[in-house]
Amino acid sequence: MVQQQTSAPHLLVPDIFPRNDIHHTAQWSAPNATTEAGGLSRLSGTTYDRHVRDWFKDQISALGADSYAVNGTGSQFATFKGEDGSVPPIAMGSHLDSVATGGRFDGPLGVIGALEVVRSLKESGIKTFAPLVLINWTNEEGARFFPPLGSSSVFAGQSTVAAAHESKANDGSGETLGDALQSIGYVGDGPNTFHDFPLSAHFEIHVEQAASLEKAGKPVGWVEGWQGICVFEMVFRGEDGHANTYPMEGRCDSLLGACKVITETETLAHSYNGYTTVTNIQSGPVGSCNIQSWTRIVFCLMHPESLKLSAMGEEIKERAQARATLGGLELETARIMHLEPGEFWPEAVDCVRRACGDKGMPARTGTAHDSTMTTLLCPTAMVFARAKDGVSHCAKEWTSREDCAESATVLGKAVLNFDEILRERSGRRALR
Amino acid sequence: MVQQQTSAPHLLVPDIFPRNDIHHTAQWSAPNATTEAGGLSRLSGTTYDRHVRDWFKDQISALGADSYAVNGTGSQFATFKGEDGSVPPIAMGSHLDSVATGGRFDGPLGVIGALEVVRSLKESGIKTFAPLVLINWTNEEGARFFPPLGSSSVFAGQSTVAAAHESKANDGSGETLGDALQSIGYVGDGPNTFHDFPLSAHFEIHVEQAASLEKAGKPVGWVEGWQGICVFEMVFRGEDGHANTYPMEGRCDSLLGACKVITETETLAHSYNGYTTVTNIQSGPVGSCNIQSWTRIVFCLMHPESLKLSAMGEEIKERAQARATLGGLELETARIMHLEPGEFWPEAVDCVRRACGDKGMPARTGTAHDSTMTTLLCPTAMVFARAKDGVSHCAKEWTSREDCAESATVLGKAVLNFDEILRERSGRRALR
Repeated sequence: MVQQQTSAPHLLVPDIFPRNDIHHTAQWSAPNATTEAGGLSRLSGTTYDRHVRDWFKDQISALGADSYAVNGTGSQFATFKGEDGSVPPIAMGSHLDSVATGGRFDGPLGVIGALEVVRSLKESGIKTFAPLVLINWTNEEGARFFPPLGSSSVFAGQSTVAAAHESKANDGSGETLGDALQSIGYVGDGPNTFHDFPLSAHFEIHVEQAASLEKAGKPVGWVEGWQGICVFEMVFRGEDGHANTYPMEGRCDSLLGACKVITETETLAHSYNGYTTVTNIQSGPVGSCNIQSWTRIVFCLMHPESLKLSAMGEEIKERAQARATLGGLELETARIMHLEPGEFWPEAVDCVRRACGDKGMPARTGTAHDSTMTTLLCPTAMVFARAKDGVSHCAKEWTSREDCAESATVLGKAVLNFDEILRERSGRRALR
Repeated sequence: MVQQQTSAPHLLVPDIFPRNDIHHTAQWSAPNATTEAGGLSRLSGTTYDRHVRDWFKDQISALGADSYAVNGTGSQFATFKGEDGSVPPIAMGSHLDSVATGGRFDGPLGVIGALEVVRSLKESGIKTFAPLVLINWTNEEGARFFPPLGSSSVFAGQSTVAAAHESKANDGSGETLGDALQSIGYVGDGPNTFHDFPLSAHFEIHVEQAASLEKAGKPVGWVEGWQGICVFEMVFRGEDGHANTYPMEGRCDSLLGACKVITETETLAHSYNGYTTVTNIQSGPVGSCNIQSWTRIVFCLMHPESLKLSAMGEEIKERAQARATLGGLELETARIMHLEPGEFWPEAVDCVRRACGDKGMPARTGTAHDSTMTTLLCPTAMVFARAKDGVSHCAKEWTSREDCAESATVLGKAVLNFDEILRERSGRRALR
């Protein structure tokens, strides 16, 4: 019976994406070069974000959700009852926000794929044992406001609503996530934490953001774990001085010092076979004739192994301090985000693996997702969809309609697989 | 007679700076760390700039200027009649704006010292042969709006009023100098060019911004010339991509490429025994998880020799192109300012030299001034005042009251020396 359900080819029909929600919702995107190039620029808390949230709410409503709530950090929760109201719901969640120069799939595929699963279950007359909840998590990207995973980190007890509201704009404008959410009317009284709203599991579709599926010729993958990420902020402070007249010797040029450290991050990555990226630089004073007396950089270090990630962090701090000392600079270093590498829950991953069947392969993600927060509290796994050239956070990000549909099919089957586990655990059999 | 005038100890009394205008006017400064540290932060076109301009106008008025005008780029001109109305006036000019993290002397000493000369001449009952004009030049620093020498370059025919009004904000805000001047009510119908308002000469006091006077134990210096300056803007364009997941190989990281070029500017300076400074960096997209796909840097190259300055420019362009090619980046380079090294007018310099007497020494400036524009059209020379530790564009910039007074004395004597030349040329003798 279970096997029939989870492998039924009619469950998620292959034409689901002619409904074209991914491309339809891409209309809500800031007017810029990324949008013109077919990408998505939908920063959290903008009017574009509001439009797509409103659209999501309308879809939920049309599907007859049994309850709907917006929580204190703006995340939207839509619950559909199952047979047993005493079991915590199985969640399918991701995010509708994007980075400034994003593609149409990173995030939206996860939410819209989940919406499609519920539509297909309704159409097929399938009622799950556990309730289902669709979640649009707020500010997953951290693109406009730092840190990322803005709402799922609160849900997982790693942050607080107040701290999330205080998330500062990366452009230094002083805006906060809380103000932005208020301005679009998305601060609600829904559940903020897992404690308030326990989940039985969390499943998420995401584009791979790497090329392993593409190289192997597989449309989908089950995600076993993620590499670790450390984000550092360094502020170099030197001395003000005249750009034209100050002798080259004796200068305390913060920008020059910071640039030398930036070049070190590249050699660091190579020496550890890890990854590093500098994502932000600001310096001052503003002008055309001043030695830059302060420079702030933000960079991330990534490695699949915890010990090597730690070692990279220690080494870059040492190298940066050496550069700062040589350049007569003061250096302040803060580790502003840290995610240990880890594994998703085997029982949840296995539900995805079985749902993939021959079409899938194991994979790992190189970055953080809302699922890397929920996995701290409940069985969590992810479905990967094949990404063209492995490109992401770019207008060129692309996943074919067929691969999107395949990933949604896998999500639906994985949820039903997990639902069957819950049903069996409860000692009951399917009613139908 | 001339000798008596120019050496008379009563001409410029040593207690002129108890009037303390430099420190009095430093109250009009943005409230920030530089101001708190005793420096000056008076960007062009701000309300602080308006306050000091209004104060300058009041001083002019109290001294009974025969005419006063504000020109199209906001510069203030106050003319005092001489014996002969047919001779173009001798100008004493500098600027009351500062960089964002400036000191109290760079600019204000030139304007306030000139004001003091007129006060002293009035008090001493000395009437010059030629008219005198005091000028407060707009946006000398180019700190808020690029380029610098915003008004004197128009006066010298190197730019236009329209182009100066279009000067763009260095912070990328899109504001223009024209709008800022309108907002503080300082766009007038006074003379915009030398053609409209010929000068017989232009003299300017400035702090040395180097330590040669201090090392030699001299309070003042006569400035013989300036080193050349080239300002380049480079924009590196790479590709958008995910900061965590994109493989290190194959990236087109504009920020990494730009930082390598920035480190090259330092070695370039050393190999030519010249100077280089990177004064601005901006990159995007904004966010915390994007490879930076565009980076804009602005830097200046300085050298006393024209050929070496040119060679530095060619070499950095080659080095930058090589770095860009290696990093998969497109590079746009523009030379956005160029000032050939040069010499002030010998006859004007000699007037300053004679005014300095034993207290002075020859010197050269490492940067551009309003005088490097006027010298394109009329005899021009500068007076240097000793600067503590050679520091400038910094809250620590300092020149003692005695040295300020000495420089004003030299300015007055130099103007009288030049006035005497004009008088002799006209074939007339002093009336008194």
